[in-house]
Amino acid sequence: MRLSRYFLPTLKETPAEAQIVSHRYMLRAGMIRQASAGIYSWLPLGLRVLKRIEAIVRDEQDKAGCQELLMPTVQPAELWQESGRYEDYGREMLRIRDRHERDMLYGPTNEELITDIFRGAIQSYRDLPKLLYHIQWKFRDEVRPRFGVMRGREFLMKDSYSFDADFDGAKRAYNKMFVSYLRTFARLGLRAIPMEAETGPIGGNLSHEFIILADTGESEVFCHRDYVEHDVLAEDVDYDGDLEPVVRYWTSLYARTDDKHDQAAFEAEVPEDARVRRRGIEVGHIFYFGTKYSDPMGARVTTADGQDVPVHMGSYGIGVSRLVGAIIEASHDDAGIVWPEAVAPFDIGLINLKSGDAACDSACLDIYNQLQAAHQSVLYDDREERPGAKFANMDLIGLPWQVIVGPRGLQNHVVELKRRDTGERHELSVGSALAKLWAWKS
Amino acid sequence: MRLSRYFLPTLKETPAEAQIVSHRYMLRAGMIRQASAGIYSWLPLGLRVLKRIEAIVRDEQDKAGCQELLMPTVQPAELWQESGRYEDYGREMLRIRDRHERDMLYGPTNEELITDIFRGAIQSYRDLPKLLYHIQWKFRDEVRPRFGVMRGREFLMKDSYSFDADFDGAKRAYNKMFVSYLRTFARLGLRAIPMEAETGPIGGNLSHEFIILADTGESEVFCHRDYVEHDVLAEDVDYDGDLEPVVRYWTSLYARTDDKHDQAAFEAEVPEDARVRRRGIEVGHIFYFGTKYSDPMGARVTTADGQDVPVHMGSYGIGVSRLVGAIIEASHDDAGIVWPEAVAPFDIGLINLKSGDAACDSACLDIYNQLQAAHQSVLYDDREERPGAKFANMDLIGLPWQVIVGPRGLQNHVVELKRRDTGERHELSVGSALAKLWAWKS
Repeated sequence: MRLSRYFLPTLKETPAEAQIVSHRYMLRAGMIRQASAGIYSWLPLGLRVLKRIEAIVRDEQDKAGCQELLMPTVQPAELWQESGRYEDYGREMLRIRDRHERDMLYGPTNEELITDIFRGAIQSYRDLPKLLYHIQWKFRDEVRPRFGVMRGREFLMKDSYSFDADFDGAKRAYNKMFVSYLRTFARLGLRAIPMEAETGPIGGNLSHEFIILADTGESEVFCHRDYVEHDVLAEDVDYDGDLEPVVRYWTSLYARTDDKHDQAAFEAEVPEDARVRRRGIEVGHIFYFGTKYSDPMGARVTTADGQDVPVHMGSYGIGVSRLVGAIIEASHDDAGIVWPEAVAPFDIGLINLKSGDAACDSACLDIYNQLQAAHQSVLYDDREERPGAKFANMDLIGLPWQVIVGPRGLQNHVVELKRRDTGERHELSVGSALAKLWAWKS
Repeated sequence: MRLSRYFLPTLKETPAEAQIVSHRYMLRAGMIRQASAGIYSWLPLGLRVLKRIEAIVRDEQDKAGCQELLMPTVQPAELWQESGRYEDYGREMLRIRDRHERDMLYGPTNEELITDIFRGAIQSYRDLPKLLYHIQWKFRDEVRPRFGVMRGREFLMKDSYSFDADFDGAKRAYNKMFVSYLRTFARLGLRAIPMEAETGPIGGNLSHEFIILADTGESEVFCHRDYVEHDVLAEDVDYDGDLEPVVRYWTSLYARTDDKHDQAAFEAEVPEDARVRRRGIEVGHIFYFGTKYSDPMGARVTTADGQDVPVHMGSYGIGVSRLVGAIIEASHDDAGIVWPEAVAPFDIGLINLKSGDAACDSACLDIYNQLQAAHQSVLYDDREERPGAKFANMDLIGLPWQVIVGPRGLQNHVVELKRRDTGERHELSVGSALAKLWAWKS
C-alpha cells in the first residue's frame, strides 16, 4: 500500500483525552477515531490489526474443536427474563424498545441466546459434547468509558459456550479452553497468566481470568514468580488427549486477581522472594457455571441411562478489540508502538527519503515489488515529506521492519534495514538487506 | 467436518412461518434460527455461506481500490441532527437512549458517520479521491419483517463511500463501483442487472439498483431482453482505465425498477418481443448524491485552484446477508438448495451409506483424507441413519458435489459421484471418481 493513497490520518498532537499510552498511540497512529464516548470507528490501519488478532483467535478456537456461529447483536428481553438476569444485570445493559414497544437489548454477552439455540436443537447426550463460539460486537453501557478500546462501550468479543452431560465433561471442555487460551495469547506475542477470579454477573463457581502484566493495568494481581517466567506452551496440543496436567501446573501455584486475593494465603504459600504483586490487564475470562442457565431455561438432555438432566455449561470470553490496546500497553516505547510480528498491520515499512528523485523512486519500486512478490505486506511511504517526519511516523506506526532508501545510500549502493523492536540497523545492498530480512523473519 | 459432530440442526417439517423458498430452506437446512422477529442467529452452515459471500464482496472492493474500515453499530443522534435526517428517517430507525439519557441509534446506514470521519481527516484535494467501505451489521426496524434474511431487521451490509473534489471525479467513483458490482455478482454465480432506481432516504439524483430476476422478488422490474441474455463481464478490469463504455452499455437500454417505470417510454424504447417484465430482488444499490451530506456537515476540501468546496460523495451498498437468501431464490429445486460453487458451505458432501461397516468406513475415511489433502472442504455424513434420510439431507443442504459410498458399490470397487445441479451420476472407482471431480471443478 502506498501511503500517499492510504487513508491514514495520523495526528501530530497527543489528544488530551487519552490517559493511557495505548489510547494515545491508537489515536495518533490513525488506527481509531471516536464516534461517541466509548464507541470507536476502526480506521484501515487499526482494522488490519483487529482482523489479524481475530484470525488467530478463530484459528485456535477451531483447533480446539469449537464450531463458529454468529448470534445477532440485538436480543429479545424475554430470554433474559427467563434466566432471571434481565433485572440483575443493571444499567450496563443497553435496553432498547422497538417500534412495536417490545423490550429488546444490545447483547452484553450471550449465555441466554446460546442456551435458547441449544434447547431448540439438542435433546440427547449422543449429540454432546458441543463447543460453540462466535465473534461479535457487544455493548456494555459503562458509566465512565475510558482508556480507548480497553474499556469501551461497543467492543468485539469472542465468546464460546460448552455443553456437556455432566461435570466431568464440562471440566474437559474447561480444560480445552484453558489450554487454547494459553496458546492463543502466546501466538499474539503475549504472556497471559491464568488467575483465579470472581465470576461476577456470569455466575458459576470455577473461573479464571487471563492476565497480562502491565503498569497501566486496571487492577492489582498477585502470583508466584514462576508463572511470570515460565514459558507458555506454544507447541501443538492434542485436544483429545488429557489436558489435566497442563491445567494442573497452571493452577498449582498462587495466582489470583484482587477480588480473590487473600494476603495470608499468599504469604503462606509463596516464598517472599517469589511473590509478584503487579498491575494486570484482563484479556480473557473463562467460567464453568453448571446449570445456572440450563435449569431455568429448560435446556435438558437425556443421558445414556435414560435420565433427563439440565445440560452443564461453561462460557469462555476473549476481548478481541481490547487486545489491540493490551498488546500496545505490553509492547511500545517512547517513539510509538512496537507490534509483535503476528499482529502487525503490515509486515514491512518502506521509506523513500526523497520521493520524486528518480533513483530513489526506482529503487523503492523495485524493493516494493520484490517484497510483494514474496507475499509480504508493505506500507510504502512515497509521500513528499521531510525524512524526519517519515522516520517519526513509521516508528509511531510500529511495523516490525523498516527498509529506508535515500539518495546518499544509493550512491554507495546501500539501503538501510532497521528492526523496530531493538533499533538494530544495517546498511546493505538491496539483495543483502532482503536476505537478512528473511533470516530475521524465519 | 464429520456430520456426527457438526452442529447442524436440520428440520424435517417445513416451518409454517416461512413464506418463501429461501426462508424455508435456510430454516430446514439448519443455516439460521430466529432470535426474534426479523433477527437471526447464523448457525455454522449458514455462517460459512455468509462468510464466503463476504469474502468475495471484500475482494472485489479491494480490487476496485476501496479501503476497508469498520464503523460501529451504535451512532450518536447528533450527527443525524446535523444532516437533517434524524427526524426524516422515521420509525425504521432504531432509536436508543443510553444510561446518561443521550440519544443514540443503531445505524441503518452510515453516510453521516463516514462524513464525520472524513471531515476530521481530509482537507485537501491532494488527498482525493478516496473510496472507503465497511462490512457491518445494520438495523432497520421494519414494521413487518418477513422472508427470513431477505427482509430482516438486523442485517449485514457492505457500504462504500466515495469522496471527490467535483462531479467528474464522483462519476469515475460511481463507474468503479458500478463495474465492481457487475463483477461481484457474477462471481457469486448471479446475473444482476443494473436498473434505474429511486434514491429514497439516501437522496441524490443518480442511482441504480442491481436486480436479480426471481418469481419471489419483492417488486416488479422492467428491462430490455438483451440485459437478461448479455453476459456480465467477469474478466479482470483495469479500474484506472476508462470504465465509461461498460457503464454506457449497461445504461443505454431500458431497465427500471417499478418506482422509475414509465410504461409509455418502455413501449416506445423497447420492441414488444424484447420487453421483459418480471419480479426482481434488489441485491445492491448505488447512489451519487453530491453534497447532500458534506454541505450541512461542513465536509469541505480545498481545490487545486484554492477554492473551498463541499466534497462530492456517493454511497454504494450490497446486502451481504440478504444475498444468502437471494442466491437460494435464484438457485434451488424441489429437493433443496443448489449452491453455486463459489459460495457453497462445503465443496463436497461425502455420504457413508452404512456407517459402522468396516469397508464403508475405511473407504470413506480414505476419500475424506484425500479430499482434504487436496484442500477441499468436505462434509462427511458418518451418522447412523437410513440412506434415504442421508440422500434427502445432502440434497437439501445443496453442496455442489456428492460422493456416495455403499457396501454394494464397494463389492464392485465403485463409488457414486453426483452433481447436485444437474443430477448427473457416475459409478466409478475412487481414483476415477476423484479424477472426474477435478475435471468438473476446473
